[in-house]
Amino acid sequence: MGADFLQLNVDDAPAGGRADWLAGRLRDAIADGRLPLGSRLPATRVLAAELQVSRGVVTEAYQRLTEDGHVAGRGRNGTIIVAVPVLTPSGGVGGVGGVGADGGLVGAAGAGGGGGLVESAGLFAEAPGADVFDELRAAPARIDLTPGLPDLAAFPRAAWLRAERAVLSDLSPAAFGYSDPRGTPALREAVARWLARSRGIRADPADVIIVNGVAQALGLLAQVLRHEGFGEVAVEEPGSLGTRQHLQNWGLGTPPIPVDQGGILVDALAASGAPAVLLTPAHEFPTGVVLDGERRRELMRWAADGGGLIIEDDYDAEHRYDRPPVPALRSMLAERVCYAASVSKLLAPALRVGWMLPPPQYAEALVAAKRSADLGNSVLPQLVLARLMETGELERQLRFLRGRHRRRRDTMIAAIGAHLPQATVHGAAAGVHLTITFEAGFAGGNAGATGLADTDLAAAAIARGLKVQPLSWHCQRPYPPGLVLGYAANTPTDITDGITLLASLVRDLT
Amino acid sequence: MGADFLQLNVDDAPAGGRADWLAGRLRDAIADGRLPLGSRLPATRVLAAELQVSRGVVTEAYQRLTEDGHVAGRGRNGTIIVAVPVLTPSGGVGGVGGVGADGGLVGAAGAGGGGGLVESAGLFAEAPGADVFDELRAAPARIDLTPGLPDLAAFPRAAWLRAERAVLSDLSPAAFGYSDPRGTPALREAVARWLARSRGIRADPADVIIVNGVAQALGLLAQVLRHEGFGEVAVEEPGSLGTRQHLQNWGLGTPPIPVDQGGILVDALAASGAPAVLLTPAHEFPTGVVLDGERRRELMRWAADGGGLIIEDDYDAEHRYDRPPVPALRSMLAERVCYAASVSKLLAPALRVGWMLPPPQYAEALVAAKRSADLGNSVLPQLVLARLMETGELERQLRFLRGRHRRRRDTMIAAIGAHLPQATVHGAAAGVHLTITFEAGFAGGNAGATGLADTDLAAAAIARGLKVQPLSWHCQRPYPPGLVLGYAANTPTDITDGITLLASLVRDLT
Repeated sequence: MGADFLQLNVDDAPAGGRADWLAGRLRDAIADGRLPLGSRLPATRVLAAELQVSRGVVTEAYQRLTEDGHVAGRGRNGTIIVAVPVLTPSGGVGGVGGVGADGGLVGAAGAGGGGGLVESAGLFAEAPGADVFDELRAAPARIDLTPGLPDLAAFPRAAWLRAERAVLSDLSPAAFGYSDPRGTPALREAVARWLARSRGIRADPADVIIVNGVAQALGLLAQVLRHEGFGEVAVEEPGSLGTRQHLQNWGLGTPPIPVDQGGILVDALAASGAPAVLLTPAHEFPTGVVLDGERRRELMRWAADGGGLIIEDDYDAEHRYDRPPVPALRSMLAERVCYAASVSKLLAPALRVGWMLPPPQYAEALVAAKRSADLGNSVLPQLVLARLMETGELERQLRFLRGRHRRRRDTMIAAIGAHLPQATVHGAAAGVHLTITFEAGFAGGNAGATGLADTDLAAAAIARGLKVQPLSWHCQRPYPPGLVLGYAANTPTDITDGITLLASLVRDLT
Repeated sequence: MGADFLQLNVDDAPAGGRADWLAGRLRDAIADGRLPLGSRLPATRVLAAELQVSRGVVTEAYQRLTEDGHVAGRGRNGTIIVAVPVLTPSGGVGGVGGVGADGGLVGAAGAGGGGGLVESAGLFAEAPGADVFDELRAAPARIDLTPGLPDLAAFPRAAWLRAERAVLSDLSPAAFGYSDPRGTPALREAVARWLARSRGIRADPADVIIVNGVAQALGLLAQVLRHEGFGEVAVEEPGSLGTRQHLQNWGLGTPPIPVDQGGILVDALAASGAPAVLLTPAHEFPTGVVLDGERRRELMRWAADGGGLIIEDDYDAEHRYDRPPVPALRSMLAERVCYAASVSKLLAPALRVGWMLPPPQYAEALVAAKRSADLGNSVLPQLVLARLMETGELERQLRFLRGRHRRRRDTMIAAIGAHLPQATVHGAAAGVHLTITFEAGFAGGNAGATGLADTDLAAAAIARGLKVQPLSWHCQRPYPPGLVLGYAANTPTDITDGITLLASLVRDLT
């Protein structure tokens, strides 16, 4: 008659209304946090047996919750709590810090990412195990610790609107027509000044090409390089899965070059024979390593003397906490460095605005490729962004984000120290994510060891409403198991809850 | 010692300064209009022989003008006048009425256009004579009657800003993250409803893909079709130069299929063996012909029974004046029609927002191509546009534009009747442009006749500050000489002045 689960006692139920009663009890438990988001309801068979009611009663109660939108059937994964009844007519209190009215499905449709293009991780059908990626990406999550997002709640809506009003009142009618495929002169000038003061790059505005994010920059460059006979672009190992898949999608091979504590191994790069390399020198994705001075000099020799092409994905260089700024490679050798960056980690990925500074020899072909792609970026967001840059709003936003992100990073590191002491933290001095690896004892990943793989840990986490990225996604070769964890887009409560949950899963699974 | 060309006499030159002298004489001739913009300098060999000077003298003089930016060397096409020395330190008056402080460079960098993609006319190096197009496009103009623009001064700035404010106040933080590469659900739903009420198309929002204009739609489709083994897409003849070059740029051949008063000749299409055809059925570019009922039925049989693919560029269907609306081909045979349209002629090309409705079999590949291109359109303009569609603002704007454009069209037709009675007007019942052809007596174009070509008329016009498109640009085969004239973006005064000037040029040249 009674169940351990929620201490339910069917004797409390009115005659003929057992399904209603059970649905009500479950709703209460979701509302007050006893059944947290992401947790799983017992199988209908099991709960019916415990309560000694017919299975139809339990099925019907679950069905009511499904119709309410509080739970979702997930096939073999069972029935999972997907929304707290915060705003339902039945009232109730979420009790879950920071979960919004939309059920906390932050970024469910397309979030994730990091490392310039890791936003697209798992989106490419060609990838081995793409199905697993897709499942993980599409699954609802109460807490999303995948990397690649800044604090989206901090988007400066009022400043954006003010700037847009100013832009619309100043604009000449001709500006609404077709324009330069390289972008509007105002933004190209603002970007050139931004790069000079924040990244040490001297650029002529005429050389700046405005693009729809780093994704488009790399796609355009890939088209041009293929046309020039390039068959491959070397990538960092470990290195962003999304970027690698993106290059492969555009027909380029991606030989992996190992990264150690000093950054990419230039000797190995030279030995690979690759004509070009894609780098994240300011904060390597996912390890967070900074390319050191000696490696920079080696790399410059490889490019200047050996004719190699460097593609610099400067994806989160502005976000640094405990270290001095690192100048961009572009500032050292403009002739052989194709620089790309975006506002995805400064403002919002949804803006789809980025810029590239190509080496002179590829500039004309890249402008032609941009024109063939879409005739140029949308003009209004360009002009608004230019204004935010020129009025100092963007710098204010960056300072604000830096403080907030640093506190969230500190929260995550503290939580890892307290709950996951067996994990080693990497690359936390900058950026919007950090990486942890597990010591021996928690084996797995794609290292071929016998223990649990990090992909299994990520899958177990998603079943509990927590989304994280396995480090092995970003490795083409065996590497210790680990996770890549974004902190910038999450509240301290979610960060602590997420790490605590992760710790319990690690205990369960090892 | 002397040349017929500009009546130059080398005896006037100071000793030892012949190159300087020649450069000065040429500069004067450009400034006072004797050497109009777009015209060609004699070959160095020829002029040197005429002047009886060494070829080095002429080469050096041309080099000075090139460094000044007044001429450009164009390989086999010779050396062409590309800029009047209006603003050079040497002074001089362009003689081009109304050239402003910025040299009158209205839209110089990228304006022009019409016919979906004619905006890009002349931008592609592969095109025969592309250099001449580039010169004409880049030249400054006091009056720009090239086709393809709506009235840009009518852009609804206040409504846009109101909608943006509403969007920014409603938006969840998650919407600033990465999103569905197909576009935001709100816009896809608004577009589906818009297409249902304005174009007779029943579409599921899930099937709508938001793109950066028709240019991107065709680029993505070209990539997918190439992957599927398509080598060519037939095009209308006459038909948009820009669209044809765009497809060629993406690796597709463009066999021309003649258009008569009923639209494209479907028999000729079938005989060509082309697996696909790109059409502008509501208002053929540039002729303005509407695809009639019998041709529609033949075309549907070609597609349904013969397996042909129809690409429908619905570029200006909303703009009609004296005729009933024409349903979209997509509404007749969704399985074999890939539909594409944009807001470029409804609001502004600068927004770079359009949509496509692919046949089901290509949908998945097109979404993947959109993702690889740029991960999806910028979100804020999508949401603002969705709101303008849902609140009825876009329909209000269209009604307003229709009245204004109709008056401008009437002004242009009246001016042509009064000043260019020898011209025949085509396709003026709809759209944002009309086309004129000249009767016998003004021969030329690419018809191979002996008279003046329409490209020469356009070049003469540009030298006087008037920009028009030669009809022959849009023809792959011989066709009567003519001009394609946009009226929607110009004031009645400019329209009348432009046609009057054109009439005087025709008189001078015939």
